[in-house]
Amino acid sequence: MTPQSPITVLVCAGAPKPDLDSLKNIYQSSDQAYLIGVDYGCLSILKTGLKLNYAVGDFDSVSPEECLQIQAASDRFEQLIPEKDNTDTEMALYHIKKLIEEGYEIEAIYLLGCLGPGGRLDHTIANLWMAFHPDFKDLFEQIIFLERACQVQVFQPGNYRLTDRLDSDYLSIIALTPIKDWIIEGAKYNLSQSEWTYPRALISNEFVNPKDIVTLSFSQGLVVVLWIREQAQAKD
Amino acid sequence: MTPQSPITVLVCAGAPKPDLDSLKNIYQSSDQAYLIGVDYGCLSILKTGLKLNYAVGDFDSVSPEECLQIQAASDRFEQLIPEKDNTDTEMALYHIKKLIEEGYEIEAIYLLGCLGPGGRLDHTIANLWMAFHPDFKDLFEQIIFLERACQVQVFQPGNYRLTDRLDSDYLSIIALTPIKDWIIEGAKYNLSQSEWTYPRALISNEFVNPKDIVTLSFSQGLVVVLWIREQAQAKD
Repeated sequence: MTPQSPITVLVCAGAPKPDLDSLKNIYQSSDQAYLIGVDYGCLSILKTGLKLNYAVGDFDSVSPEECLQIQAASDRFEQLIPEKDNTDTEMALYHIKKLIEEGYEIEAIYLLGCLGPGGRLDHTIANLWMAFHPDFKDLFEQIIFLERACQVQVFQPGNYRLTDRLDSDYLSIIALTPIKDWIIEGAKYNLSQSEWTYPRALISNEFVNPKDIVTLSFSQGLVVVLWIREQAQAKD
Repeated sequence: MTPQSPITVLVCAGAPKPDLDSLKNIYQSSDQAYLIGVDYGCLSILKTGLKLNYAVGDFDSVSPEECLQIQAASDRFEQLIPEKDNTDTEMALYHIKKLIEEGYEIEAIYLLGCLGPGGRLDHTIANLWMAFHPDFKDLFEQIIFLERACQVQVFQPGNYRLTDRLDSDYLSIIALTPIKDWIIEGAKYNLSQSEWTYPRALISNEFVNPKDIVTLSFSQGLVVVLWIREQAQAKD
């Protein structure tokens, strides 16, 4: 791997049922992919037959034998003490920042196994909460959470054109903070310039036609968009 | 039911696998219980053999026959149009506010089937986001989200003594907003007077001993506490 060519980073954390099909597809269609396993997520990646560029975690969710197996299959391996201030997944993001400092150009960052379905709710929230962390603000411009039942992206103030990348049933647009000049256009339910002093969840919106573009804009705050597939989580 | 005696309100929404054992236990041990079903959650309550005091929803997640069955088993039944600004669960909270206006005293409010596990992530977030809504601020002093894998409560600024009510593996304390004078004492990992300009998730804390009391205090912001049982969600 050379720092000159842009890399697609795939991070798999430990929530149940990560979307390994998407992981493999993205890996195969990327010029250069960089695979990061987080704790039990390392085993998920190894199950696909791929190796790990970086493995990180306190590895309290795997057996000592599995831990050795992960270590043997990783270019770089870092075992953290359980008593730490950052979560294992946050440590993966710090590693990505280090790659950028080392000169790597990042094409895209996909996080899998972070939001569920069926994982620990506190982990789900903590993983989404990484978007608030000042250290990760720039990184989040390239981050997409990718799960079987949903795709999730966090947006800073600006104007965005959202396409239906996932054959979704629902498009949910949720403010994570108070918000100013919030506009949604081109969706089934639209919103004209609106201001909210508290975070507001506008869920179960829809693309009217699959090829439509929904425009989202706001001048202040943080917004998370979820493309939801209703039945996708039933698949094993 | 008389308005003179305090009532315990049980709301069951439509997320998969609501904790019906707890629902029945709380129902049976309450002097007066008031059962609210939200959409598919109505069927969950009927499965336990109990009747509904109030059924609400657009009922797009049940068949027309099931909808009639719910209607027949409910003291009050309200079918909403799908195109509405509030979620079905928010409508259930507005109904509780109406009960209070009618003179009912509320002993406690339990929300089940709201946060998962395994439900739609946008629903989970929207249900937690109700805590931000100015209309529900007072109500949330009495609300406990009760799921098989976790118990969740939202706190306004103040001083609180948290006990381990759930035989929990983890105690996760998560700021929903920026926060001031945040103190956690008596837990495995403590926090001395701390201030954060962004929401921060402190997860996987623990009670040192099951009978210990963890004190939580903060002077500004909103904090959600999750008592997590690691393996509880495996149960069907």
